[in-house]
Amino acid sequence: MDQYKEFAKLFGEVLAEKQSECVEKSIPLGISNRHIHLSQKDIDQLFGRGYQLTMLKELSQPGQYACKETVMICGPKGAIEKVRVLGPARSETQVEILSADCFKLGVKAPIHQSGEIEQTPGVTIIGSQGTVILEKGVIVAQRHIHMTPEDAEKFGVKDKQIVSLCLLGIRGGVLENTIVRVNNSFSLECHLDTEEANAMGLSSQSKVYIN
Amino acid sequence: MDQYKEFAKLFGEVLAEKQSECVEKSIPLGISNRHIHLSQKDIDQLFGRGYQLTMLKELSQPGQYACKETVMICGPKGAIEKVRVLGPARSETQVEILSADCFKLGVKAPIHQSGEIEQTPGVTIIGSQGTVILEKGVIVAQRHIHMTPEDAEKFGVKDKQIVSLCLLGIRGGVLENTIVRVNNSFSLECHLDTEEANAMGLSSQSKVYIN
Repeated sequence: MDQYKEFAKLFGEVLAEKQSECVEKSIPLGISNRHIHLSQKDIDQLFGRGYQLTMLKELSQPGQYACKETVMICGPKGAIEKVRVLGPARSETQVEILSADCFKLGVKAPIHQSGEIEQTPGVTIIGSQGTVILEKGVIVAQRHIHMTPEDAEKFGVKDKQIVSLCLLGIRGGVLENTIVRVNNSFSLECHLDTEEANAMGLSSQSKVYIN
Repeated sequence: MDQYKEFAKLFGEVLAEKQSECVEKSIPLGISNRHIHLSQKDIDQLFGRGYQLTMLKELSQPGQYACKETVMICGPKGAIEKVRVLGPARSETQVEILSADCFKLGVKAPIHQSGEIEQTPGVTIIGSQGTVILEKGVIVAQRHIHMTPEDAEKFGVKDKQIVSLCLLGIRGGVLENTIVRVNNSFSLECHLDTEEANAMGLSSQSKVYIN
């Protein structure tokens, strides 16, 4: 009996240690649906000269927010309504769609990091006050982890490092080719799109781990 | 120079062996969109008494086919039109939806194997001639591999065994909890749904591997 108690105590300690290690190394998940970042020039064209985006909700990355404004995006094969605009305005317009949207729109968007819009297709964007014929800027976002330099040290990774994500649950598994992005202005968060999250059975309450 | 030639020959042989091993162990991929299997009773109700499903296209699993018929499925939060009916008729109606569809419909479908419809939600099905209020049968299909007993021997696996899938490419990774289903009437094929395939960057030309 004493032996059993000792074993139970030891087991409890090991478990507690493992749990705290897990909690310490867990990364919150942010799930992105299709969305669009707009340049001020395109905001003017879509919503009227000098128009300012209206904040609807702050996002977890500092300074980023979802806007009340939505647009329609149109490709040669179809259109998608109510695509959420994210603010603030950026230097260049970028449309981040789901892989399934490529079929709906008839647009072959590559899997790229945010900002890498050279050699990407365009799309036509319809706003309440005008239309923009975007020449390039449509991507499917490569999965990535935002973190601060302090986080990077804790996880033992560097900016632009490619890591694998470990995901638990009935649809769990490993996602390779996840890029680490380190910046003082970031908040620790792994970004997957809705198809990736659904495929792996994840919700916005899920945690992910670097493998 | 002779040494180099010998090395090149050896390297070529190793590569050829590895390649043939890979080709031998590769599994074709079938990508499923949302679809519905209907009982004859529900076919009668939806399309008219004694109605026979019309084959549109044979599927890769012997005897299975996509039908010309589609239905609308409705949940408390929304409806999805043009859900493809798959034939032939089954003993019980089963609706296989995507994880994203759960939000559209307002239905919490569990990730289940085909046929496991106890304790699953229902949905209302609208056909050209009538409506069925389905009490249960809505699932998100668990990823699985169909194979013959000969395939199972080749891969060293058994019916109902849980395996991991290895997937290559820019969105590659590992999908755990993939169930092996062995039956003489099956043809070797791994079934993922469109969200899983999109998340992993796969097309119907892709091959998958047991890890």
